[in-house]
Amino acid sequence: MNTSFFQGLLQSITERGRQLLESREPAPGNAQALAQACHKLISSHGEASGVALARQVLCAYRDCPEAQQKAFFDILLKDFAPPHDALAEACQRYLDDPSSANTTALFQASEPPRQELFRRLNQAPGGTAELIAMRRLLLQELKARPELTAVDHDLQHLLASWFNRGFLVLRRIDWSTPASILEKIIKYEAVHAIKDWDDLRGRLQPADRRCFAFFHPALADEPLIFVEVALTRAMPGAIADILEPGSGAQPAEEPDTAVFYSISNCQDGLRGISFGNFLIKQVVEELAREIPGLRHYVTLSPVPGLRRWLDGLGDDPQLGAAAAELLKALKPDAPPPPRTEQPLLALAAEYFLHAKNGAGLPLDPVARFHLGNGARLERLNWRGDLSVSGLRQAAGLMVNYRYELRQIEKNHEAYANQGAVAASPEVRKLATLSAKTKR
Amino acid sequence: MNTSFFQGLLQSITERGRQLLESREPAPGNAQALAQACHKLISSHGEASGVALARQVLCAYRDCPEAQQKAFFDILLKDFAPPHDALAEACQRYLDDPSSANTTALFQASEPPRQELFRRLNQAPGGTAELIAMRRLLLQELKARPELTAVDHDLQHLLASWFNRGFLVLRRIDWSTPASILEKIIKYEAVHAIKDWDDLRGRLQPADRRCFAFFHPALADEPLIFVEVALTRAMPGAIADILEPGSGAQPAEEPDTAVFYSISNCQDGLRGISFGNFLIKQVVEELAREIPGLRHYVTLSPVPGLRRWLDGLGDDPQLGAAAAELLKALKPDAPPPPRTEQPLLALAAEYFLHAKNGAGLPLDPVARFHLGNGARLERLNWRGDLSVSGLRQAAGLMVNYRYELRQIEKNHEAYANQGAVAASPEVRKLATLSAKTKR
Amino acid sequence: MNTSFFQGLLQSITERGRQLLESREPAPGNAQALAQACHKLISSHGEASGVALARQVLCAYRDCPEAQQKAFFDILLKDFAPPHDALAEACQRYLDDPSSANTTALFQASEPPRQELFRRLNQAPGGTAELIAMRRLLLQELKARPELTAVDHDLQHLLASWFNRGFLVLRRIDWSTPASILEKIIKYEAVHAIKDWDDLRGRLQPADRRCFAFFHPALADEPLIFVEVALTRAMPGAIADILEPGSGAQPAEEPDTAVFYSISNCQDGLRGISFGNFLIKQVVEELAREIPGLRHYVTLSPVPGLRRWLDGLGDDPQLGAAAAELLKALKPDAPPPPRTEQPLLALAAEYFLHAKNGAGLPLDPVARFHLGNGARLERLNWRGDLSVSGLRQAAGLMVNYRYELRQIEKNHEAYANQGAVAASPEVRKLATLSAKTKR
Amino acid sequence: MNTSFFQGLLQSITERGRQLLESREPAPGNAQALAQACHKLISSHGEASGVALARQVLCAYRDCPEAQQKAFFDILLKDFAPPHDALAEACQRYLDDPSSANTTALFQASEPPRQELFRRLNQAPGGTAELIAMRRLLLQELKARPELTAVDHDLQHLLASWFNRGFLVLRRIDWSTPASILEKIIKYEAVHAIKDWDDLRGRLQPADRRCFAFFHPALADEPLIFVEVALTRAMPGAIADILEPGSGAQPAEEPDTAVFYSISNCQDGLRGISFGNFLIKQVVEELAREIPGLRHYVTLSPVPGLRRWLDGLGDDPQLGAAAAELLKALKPDAPPPPRTEQPLLALAAEYFLHAKNGAGLPLDPVARFHLGNGARLERLNWRGDLSVSGLRQAAGLMVNYRYELRQIEKNHEAYANQGAVAASPEVRKLATLSAKTKR
Repeated sequence: MNTSFFQGLLQSITERGRQLLESREPAPGNAQALAQACHKLISSHGEASGVALARQVLCAYRDCPEAQQKAFFDILLKDFAPPHDALAEACQRYLDDPSSANTTALFQASEPPRQELFRRLNQAPGGTAELIAMRRLLLQELKARPELTAVDHDLQHLLASWFNRGFLVLRRIDWSTPASILEKIIKYEAVHAIKDWDDLRGRLQPADRRCFAFFHPALADEPLIFVEVALTRAMPGAIADILEPGSGAQPAEEPDTAVFYSISNCQDGLRGISFGNFLIKQVVEELAREIPGLRHYVTLSPVPGLRRWLDGLGDDPQLGAAAAELLKALKPDAPPPPRTEQPLLALAAEYFLHAKNGAGLPLDPVARFHLGNGARLERLNWRGDLSVSGLRQAAGLMVNYRYELRQIEKNHEAYANQGAVAASPEVRKLATLSAKTKR
Repeated sequence: MNTSFFQGLLQSITERGRQLLESREPAPGNAQALAQACHKLISSHGEASGVALARQVLCAYRDCPEAQQKAFFDILLKDFAPPHDALAEACQRYLDDPSSANTTALFQASEPPRQELFRRLNQAPGGTAELIAMRRLLLQELKARPELTAVDHDLQHLLASWFNRGFLVLRRIDWSTPASILEKIIKYEAVHAIKDWDDLRGRLQPADRRCFAFFHPALADEPLIFVEVALTRAMPGAIADILEPGSGAQPAEEPDTAVFYSISNCQDGLRGISFGNFLIKQVVEELAREIPGLRHYVTLSPVPGLRRWLDGLGDDPQLGAAAAELLKALKPDAPPPPRTEQPLLALAAEYFLHAKNGAGLPLDPVARFHLGNGARLERLNWRGDLSVSGLRQAAGLMVNYRYELRQIEKNHEAYANQGAVAASPEVRKLATLSAKTKR
Repeated sequence: MNTSFFQGLLQSITERGRQLLESREPAPGNAQALAQACHKLISSHGEASGVALARQVLCAYRDCPEAQQKAFFDILLKDFAPPHDALAEACQRYLDDPSSANTTALFQASEPPRQELFRRLNQAPGGTAELIAMRRLLLQELKARPELTAVDHDLQHLLASWFNRGFLVLRRIDWSTPASILEKIIKYEAVHAIKDWDDLRGRLQPADRRCFAFFHPALADEPLIFVEVALTRAMPGAIADILEPGSGAQPAEEPDTAVFYSISNCQDGLRGISFGNFLIKQVVEELAREIPGLRHYVTLSPVPGLRRWLDGLGDDPQLGAAAAELLKALKPDAPPPPRTEQPLLALAAEYFLHAKNGAGLPLDPVARFHLGNGARLERLNWRGDLSVSGLRQAAGLMVNYRYELRQIEKNHEAYANQGAVAASPEVRKLATLSAKTKR
Repeated sequence: MNTSFFQGLLQSITERGRQLLESREPAPGNAQALAQACHKLISSHGEASGVALARQVLCAYRDCPEAQQKAFFDILLKDFAPPHDALAEACQRYLDDPSSANTTALFQASEPPRQELFRRLNQAPGGTAELIAMRRLLLQELKARPELTAVDHDLQHLLASWFNRGFLVLRRIDWSTPASILEKIIKYEAVHAIKDWDDLRGRLQPADRRCFAFFHPALADEPLIFVEVALTRAMPGAIADILEPGSGAQPAEEPDTAVFYSISNCQDGLRGISFGNFLIKQVVEELAREIPGLRHYVTLSPVPGLRRWLDGLGDDPQLGAAAAELLKALKPDAPPPPRTEQPLLALAAEYFLHAKNGAGLPLDPVARFHLGNGARLERLNWRGDLSVSGLRQAAGLMVNYRYELRQIEKNHEAYANQGAVAASPEVRKLATLSAKTKR
C-alpha cells in the first residue's frame, strides 16, 4: 500500500513539540503558583483554554529552579491525592454493596486527581517529553524521599499506558538516518561506548551490520531503546571480533547468525516500562523477513555481576583449591592468565545456574532480562571482553544467549513459575565441574 | 527542521494494522474459549508470547458470531472485575489508615483486570482499531443491557487516555489526499451529505475551501473527526450559497471570514471522547497562520431540535396568536411562507435562550457543543436550509455561532458555571419579541 | 536504506510548477512580443534574469490567443533557425578539413537556437509542463502545416533527452494514491474506458489487481503512461472476465499469470517518445519480485485494425467461400454468429502473419508495439470483447501476446531485422487454414 | 497541497542507482570489448535489451583498469564520431539548398553517435552518476590530450541539458539531514574546511545559520553545490567572527543581513555547468520568505588571486614607495603589519577594478563569479582571514559582494557587455589612492 499520506502525520506532532521548547511565556516561577495553575487546569477552565493552559504550566515548571520543581512534587503528592472523605465514603458503600456500579465508583474515587492533571498536561505540544523529564527528576528525588512513590506510581501508570507496545514503531537506524538522531545513539549507547562518528559509521554502514530502535509518535526524535546487530557465519565469542574487525575481514557473504551485541534503553524517565522483550522479538521478525538464510539469533552479552560475586566467594570456607587460586590470579585490569580458563568458566556456570537474588532469580541482571524473555544461556566465552570494564565486571567473560523461537514460551514459563534457568548442556556440564572446583 | 525521517515512523504502525486484518488464524469461536485465552493473556504467559497471543484473541473475537461477542461482554463484566476479597480488604485497610501507600494500593485493587486485558490486546498490530470496533458493539448492546456500563467505563477510560489531544495530528484533507481516506470523508459526513466524488471535489478543490481532520498515529487511515470550511467575505445565511455556488461565483479574492459549515465525528467506538473543541481551535490557528486577512470565525449550523420543540408548543395555553398561526403554517416538507419569518425567528431565539434540558443547559445539542466551546450565538437565518432534513429539523432555520478568541474563555466559564448562553444583541432582541409572540 | 530525505526532494519541483500556474504577470499578448522576449532570453540578459524571464515568456505564451500561439511557431521556425551564413561557413570548413574540431563546430552551428531557447524556458518553474503543452498544440498544427516539422524536431529531441528512461520513476497506483492522480487515470485510460470512481476502485483495490505508472520528477502529478494488470491462474480470453468478474469470483489465491490488459499513454505532447517497452519490462521485474509464483506474463489486447482489413478483403477475387460467408455474416454491432468462429480466427491469423504496412511490418499497430518489444503472438480469442468498440474494431476478437524473458531479445532482433512475427504454433496453424479459407 | 505522494517518487531512482553500484556482472575488461558492447547498445539490440545492456556496459567500464578506460575515450573519439561520408553529403546538400528539411538533416548528421550512446547508457540505474564519473576522468585526461575535447563537448552538452535548472531541487541542509549527505558536505566544502562533525554542527544547528544545496532527482544522495549562510545584524569583515563566534556571542535576535560565506561545487564531473548563480538567487528568495526582516544579502569572500598579482608587481618600475614597502613587509605566513593596511587596501582595489585577464575580465575568479551574477563589490576587509590559506592567497584580505535585487540585471549587463566592474564608492575611492600608491 501507498503509505506516504500517513507518513506525513507525524510532522505536526514533532513540530508542535518543538514549538513548546521554543516558546517563552511568563512563568509563575514557584511551586505554589504552579499548583494554582494546575488546579485551574483540571477545573472547567481547563476545558476551555485547554492546550494553552497546559502549555503555560509546563513552561512554568521547566523554568522553575530545581528546588521549586521538587517542592512541586510534594504538592502533587498532597494536594492532588484522592479527596479522603469521598474515597472513604466510596469504600464504605462498596463494603456495604459490592455492586458493579459501586466498584466503578470506587475505582473513580481512588484515582488520584494527579492522573487527570498529567493527562491534561499531555495535551500541550511537547507535553509527553516534558512529563518524561519530570519523571526523570522524580526518580532521582525518590531515593531520598520514598514517600513520593505514590506520585511516581501515577506517572508510571500513565506512561506505561501511553507507551503501550501497540503505539511503538520500529525503525532501522543506518547511515542515512538524520544526524540529530544519530548523535543520540552515540549518547545513549550504554554497553560498548561509541567513541565518535567514525566508530558509529562502523556499526551502521557495513553490509553485515544492523541497528533498530523503537520510537513513539509523540516523541519522534527520541529513540526509546535500540539494539545493535552483527550478521555472521558463527556465534562469536569475543566482542573485539565485532567492534574491531580485522583489516582482512569480509562481511559474511551469506550470514546465518544474527548477533545482538548491544541493547540500550534511552529514556531514564521511562524506567520500569519494558521495551526490550518486544524489541528483540520484532527485530528477529524483521531480520528473518529480510534475510531468509538466518538460522540463529544469539546475543553476545556482558556479565555485569560476575566479578562482585567471585570476590564474595573469597570468604567461602568450602572454596576449592582451583577456585581459590583463580581468585588470587585475577587482577582488576589485566586479562586472566591461561591457567584460569577452566576454573573461571566453571565458576561462572555456577554463578548463572545457582546464584540467586532475594526473589529466587539469577543474580545477574542481564541474565534476568534474557532468561525472562525466554532465551537460553548458550555458551560462556573466556576472554570475551578484555576492555577495562569487561575485566572489572566479569574478568573478561562474555556469554551468548540464544533466542530459539519455538522454545521461548516454554523457557519463559519455566523461568517465571519456577525460576528455572534454561541453559545448554555445555553450560550445565561446566556447572557440574564447578561443584568440584569449589568444594 | 527536516522532518522526513519522522514521517516514516507511521508506516509500520499502519502496515502492522493491515496485517492483522489480513491474518487468518484458527479461532476458538466462542465466548468461553475467548475468555480462556484472555486469562492466559493477562497471566505471565502474556509477557512471553505477548503480541502473538493478543493478536490471536482479537482475531478470534472478530471471527465469533455476534451473539458470542455479546456473551463475551458478560464475561468481561463478571470474570474480569476486581476480585472482591482483595478489594474489600484494601478498602478496610484504607479506612483504618488512609496513608499514601494504602491509597495507591486501593487504587490498584479497584482497577478492573479488564483494563490490563485491554492494554495487552492493544499490543497486537491493529489492536486499537479492534478495540474501537468492540466498543461500538458494546455501546449498541448497552441500551438493552445497562449493566454492561462498567465494561464500557473501562474501555472509554483507556481510549480517552490513548486519544489524548497530545497524540492527535491535524491534517488538511484536499484533492491530493489518498482516495482511501476521501471515501471515508464521503461516508462519515453527517451534516450535509456528500452525494458523490464530484460533490466531494467541490468541497475540497476550490481555492476558497478547506477541510481538516484529526488522525491518531495508531489509526492512521481513519479520520477521527473532520470539519469543512468555506472562506468568504461575509457571514453566510444559507447553506446553499456554500454547497451550490452559482455558476458565476468567484472564490473570494481576499476572504475575511472562515465558515465552519460541517463537523462530523467519524468513530462510533470513540463516542464520549471529545475532539470537536480541540479541532475547531487548532483549525482557527492554522487558518490564521495561512491567511493573515481572516477576521471572523463563524459556523453555519443546523438547529436539530427546533421543530420538535415548536411542535411541543402546540399545547401551550399561553401561546400567542402569531405563534399559533406560525405553527399552523409550517409544513413538514415545504419552505415556510414569508409571513412566518418574524414569528419563527422570535420563537427560535426563545428556544436558544430559554429552552433547557434537565441539566439546565440548552435543549439544542449543537448549541450545547458550540456554547460549551465558548462560542456565542450570533445570528438566526430564516430559510437557511431548505433541504428536506433542514425543513424537518428546523423549518429551514440555520444559525451562526461566532468564535471570538478573546471571549472564548469568558463565555465558556459563564456557560459551564451558570449555564449562561452567550448571544448577540440581535438574538437577544428577537427573544424579547418572542415573549410577545408567544403570550 | 532510509530514503525519506530523498523523498522530500520532489516537493519543491512540484510546488514550483504550481506557482507558475498561479502567477499572473502582464503578458505581451502577441507572437511578436513573445519573439522579442525570447530573443532577450537567449541573449546575455537571459543569464542574469534567467528564471524570471523564462517564466514571463511562458506565462505570456499561455495567455496568448491560440492564433498568436500558432503564429509564434512560425517565428520559432524562421527566426530561431541556425543562421545561414555561419552554418554555410561551418559546412565549407568541414568539407575542407573534416577535423574533430570542425565537426564539433559544425554540430554547434547546425543546432537551431530554438533548442537553447527551449532549454532556457525549461528553467522556469513548471516549464517542462508548458513545453509539453506547446508541443501538443504544435502536433495538431503540424497536420495542416508540415513545414513546422523542423520546430517539432527540436522540441521532441529535447523532450526525448529529458524523459530518458533513467529519469523515469515507476510508481504503483492503488486506492491510497491521491485522488488528483486517480482522476487522471480515469481521464487517460484509452483502451477500456473507466466509467466512474467505483469502476476505478474495482481495478485498483482487489488483491488480484495492480496498476503501475511512470512519472517524471519535473511533472510529478502527471502520469506519463500506465498499465493495468490482473493476476490470474490462466491466460484469459475475454476482457469481461477481467472487467466484470462474476459475483462468485474469488481472487486467485496463488496466481501464476500476470495479464497486462490495458496500456495507456497519457501525454499527447510526448508523442513519439516511447515508454511502453520500458514500462512492461520494469513491471515484469516488480511483479516477479513481489509474487515469486508468477510464471506467465501475457497481455489481453485489442486488434484495432482487423475489421478494416477484413472489409478490404471483400474485393479480393481469390476470397474463399467460407471467408466470403464470414464477411457477410459480420454485423457492426452484434456478436459474430457461432459458425464464423473458425474462419474468423483463420483470417485473423493471416492478418497478423501476412498483412503488412509500407515498411514491411504488421498492419496492426498494437501488434507492432508488442512484437517490437520482443513479445510473441500467443493466442487468438474469439468473442474476446463484445463491447461496441470491440465489435467494430475486430468483430469481437482479442489476442494474447506473451512476454517470455528469455526469448525477448531474439524475437526483437528477428522482428527488427527481418520483420519476422513471433507466433505460437497454434496461431501459425490457424494461418495455414486461412490460406484455404481464403482461396 | 499534499505532496507526500510525490515525495515517494524519488525512492526508486535512488534505489535503482544503488543496485548498479552493488551489481557484479562479468566485465569485458578492456576498451575494445567495451566498444563492441557500445555498438550493440546503439543498434537495434539496444532497444530490446535496453536497460540491461546499458548496465552491463557501465559495470564493465567501471571495472576496467584506468588505462583501458582512457583507451575507451579514444574509441569514443574515433569510432563514435559522425560518419564522414554522410555528413559531407549533408553539408553539400545544405549548401545546395538551405531548406528547413536540409538544415534539420544536417543537424542530425552532425550529431556524434556518442550522444546517443550516452543517452542509452543513462537508461541504466545509476547511469547518470557513472557518466559524471566518466567525465571527471575525461577532464583529467584532457589536459594531456586536448584532442579528446570533442568527446567532452558531447558529454557536457548532455549533462548541461539534463541538469537544467528546471530539474534542480533546492534543499535545506540542517542537523536533521541524513548523515550520509552531511559527510559529503564535510568532504566537498572547498572554501573554509570543516574540521569534524562538531564543526559541521556549528555551521548547521545554530538558529542564525543556514545551509542550502541543489540536488538532482537522478543523483539524489549527492549535493551538486551548496552555500553556507550566517544571519547577522551587520556586514561582517572577518571570517573568524562567523566560524569561531566568541563565547558571549548571541545569535542575532532580528537579523537584517544574510551573509553567504562559503559556496562549494561538489561534482568535478559537472565542471562548466553553472549552478551558483541560480543557487544564490533562489536562496535569497527562500530567506526573504522565511525572514521578512532581511534587508541585505552579501558575501564574505576570499580573494584567491591577490597575492600572486601583488607578487607580480615587484617588477613594475612604476611601483610607488608605499607599495614597494608593502610588498617587502608581506610574509607568507604572518598577518600583515598595521602600517600596511592602507596600501594593501588601495592596491587590492586596483586589483579588482583594473587587473584583467585575456578576455578583459577581472583577474580574480571569485570576482568574475559574483560580478557575473550581477553583484557589486562592496567592501575590502583588511585582516579578514588570518588563516594560512587566507594569508597566502590574499595577505589576509577578504571582500564583501552585495546582491541588490534591483541592480542585479543592470550590473550583469554592464559587466557582460563592457566588462564593467560594479563597485561601491568606497572601493572606487581606494582604487584612486592606489594609483598614487603605485606610481
